[in-house]
Amino acid sequence: MNGTELIRGPNKATVLNLVRQAQSISRTQIARQTGLSRSAVSTIVAELLEAGWIVECGSGKSSGGRRPILLAHRPQAGYVLGLDVGASHLSALVTDLDAHVLAEVRRAFDVSRGPGVGLPAIASIGEDVLAQGDVDRQQLLAVGIAVPGPLDYQRGTVIAPPIMPGWDGFPIRSHLEVRFGVPVYLDNDANLGALGELRYGAGRGLQNLAFIKVATGIGCGIVIDGRIYHGQTGAAGEIGHVVVDPDGPPCTCGGFGCLEAMAGGPAIAARAGLAIQAGQSTILRTGQANGNLSARDVAEAARRGDPLSRQLFADAGRLIGLAAADVINLLNPGRLIIGGGVSQAGDLILETLRETVDRRTVRAAIENVDVVQSELGVRSTALGAVALALQETFKSSAVDFGF
Amino acid sequence: MNGTELIRGPNKATVLNLVRQAQSISRTQIARQTGLSRSAVSTIVAELLEAGWIVECGSGKSSGGRRPILLAHRPQAGYVLGLDVGASHLSALVTDLDAHVLAEVRRAFDVSRGPGVGLPAIASIGEDVLAQGDVDRQQLLAVGIAVPGPLDYQRGTVIAPPIMPGWDGFPIRSHLEVRFGVPVYLDNDANLGALGELRYGAGRGLQNLAFIKVATGIGCGIVIDGRIYHGQTGAAGEIGHVVVDPDGPPCTCGGFGCLEAMAGGPAIAARAGLAIQAGQSTILRTGQANGNLSARDVAEAARRGDPLSRQLFADAGRLIGLAAADVINLLNPGRLIIGGGVSQAGDLILETLRETVDRRTVRAAIENVDVVQSELGVRSTALGAVALALQETFKSSAVDFGF
Repeated sequence: MNGTELIRGPNKATVLNLVRQAQSISRTQIARQTGLSRSAVSTIVAELLEAGWIVECGSGKSSGGRRPILLAHRPQAGYVLGLDVGASHLSALVTDLDAHVLAEVRRAFDVSRGPGVGLPAIASIGEDVLAQGDVDRQQLLAVGIAVPGPLDYQRGTVIAPPIMPGWDGFPIRSHLEVRFGVPVYLDNDANLGALGELRYGAGRGLQNLAFIKVATGIGCGIVIDGRIYHGQTGAAGEIGHVVVDPDGPPCTCGGFGCLEAMAGGPAIAARAGLAIQAGQSTILRTGQANGNLSARDVAEAARRGDPLSRQLFADAGRLIGLAAADVINLLNPGRLIIGGGVSQAGDLILETLRETVDRRTVRAAIENVDVVQSELGVRSTALGAVALALQETFKSSAVDFGF
Repeated sequence: MNGTELIRGPNKATVLNLVRQAQSISRTQIARQTGLSRSAVSTIVAELLEAGWIVECGSGKSSGGRRPILLAHRPQAGYVLGLDVGASHLSALVTDLDAHVLAEVRRAFDVSRGPGVGLPAIASIGEDVLAQGDVDRQQLLAVGIAVPGPLDYQRGTVIAPPIMPGWDGFPIRSHLEVRFGVPVYLDNDANLGALGELRYGAGRGLQNLAFIKVATGIGCGIVIDGRIYHGQTGAAGEIGHVVVDPDGPPCTCGGFGCLEAMAGGPAIAARAGLAIQAGQSTILRTGQANGNLSARDVAEAARRGDPLSRQLFADAGRLIGLAAADVINLLNPGRLIIGGGVSQAGDLILETLRETVDRRTVRAAIENVDVVQSELGVRSTALGAVALALQETFKSSAVDFGF
């Protein structure tokens, strides 16, 4: 079944969305809530049942007559693919319509090699995870994809992305739409991390939150009134290039001492490398090949008690805390969630981050705001891509459906 | 006429709002756009005409039959009072329903003396401007008031406001409602400055903007999707207490080296005083009584070419530019508007502010974003208070009307 052909007209979309949002619902309730006639509802429900979008799931309470048959949506009516393109990793998930993960693949990647090498790798991890999940390609409804750079949403491309040289203006979305034959929805990695946590993680139930992604790059996803805030031109949340130290190390953006260049994953690893070269005492020295150190190695050493490694994470936490304090003073979010690969170091980085936030925020802005680690871990962004694909697929307007 | 008693029910409010939003509109168009019956529209229109809310204003194009009579709202059907409570000034405006100013009063004020002294002064300037505008108290529909501190919107009070000691938790709104006998709407000064510029000034036509108010305090008003963004607890935009220099001068908030303590009006004046004491060459020395210097005096000297005074404004511009760059990187607003008393210094402060913004923002975030001076000058916030009062009075739901 190619699902998208089976729903025609806005009423069908409206009824399907109502059933999706309800745990279970009767035809009478659908008629009451949509304003559609009983006979129109019956026809639409029959078509949705026939096409496998919804199922009958028992009977509800009687209001006098016979007990009404309840309807529920069928999570296996379709599948979506979530792709998370990082600077140094690719991650792909395939889920059903309830965002339950059927299969997941994670691979090393180098986004800086550009679209000629990168795009086939992205398409290929997508194909692989669909195969692992045993998903019928006819049932794939949409693809959501996260990329680590500011976006042009109209054109489906990135704009001047510091850590994605060669991708500026490249039509990522249309290339993948041709490859997968379904609509592709694109957003920034930090934005989709925020959306993932909002829907399935540490942000459930909130309307306003900020999500700081700390990985190779550092960015902030902002949710306002339950939706991703993109800003005027799609560049909201670009905190990674705030200058922390004008005399600091060079950054991929061409500047010096940007937050990202001081506290991102590669920065932590580079600082460890310099400390080793300078002869500082650390357990890293013996265990690691020189120049081949990652932030993960440093985190591992820190967990084993290595003072240098602990210091490096504490320093990064302090710097990210400065940006986090700015975010809280300016946005007064309901919660600040710290995610991304480097944040997996947990308290090694969160302790000094929280201390800095406490010291640098106004009481009114920080009161009732907690700073927490992401619940979805390295999956925040890929699950956000899934959430985006589901949200866009099931928008209640038939125009948005593309039917 | 006490206007608020004359509109009953949501349909009447809906029709009135439709007429207000249209330049002119016929009964047939009202029926079509509201879904109300022709006869219901006729009855409601007759009542609104009778009560003086709307007027007949000529006839429109015929669509076959006779030419329809056009209706327009009557700006003089009611008046609103806008109050701007600053740290060191009070400002009051009374306007008609089109926000045309009938009268305006501005006075020196000391908010730090607390509500016992401050509240009578606020009520009194309100009464005075109503008298000057010759406004019939029966036609006063609402009061909008701006205060320089973070707010608790439910309770209509400020929370822990650094420059309003003694006002913490004081029920400003309910006191003024008793005094003026109409609904009072309260918001933060920077938020209302943003709203004023959005509706009547440099922000017209935009959906997303940020307004940095530089006066005694420094705060940021944020407009997202055409509405003021308050944050989770009402404290959004608190950029005045970001620490710019940990070794800087003490701030009203208890901290040291906050942006506000380094670049607000009193900070500029204090730095000038210190420079004079240190014997620096300046034209300020002869013209000004020591210790009685204001930022306005320094601006005046700067305009006359005094190098010290020019330097002090340039320094303030650079510091505010740091915060402005953070705002742009994080929010990517459609426009950044600089307002408040100190910003009246114009290019003296804007030049270095813009230079700093250009240097410290990511290309994607700053592209297509301009940094401009407020169009409404010292009136931004009072006109924003008017805009708030009008917006809340004419909300289309009868519940919000309070009828």
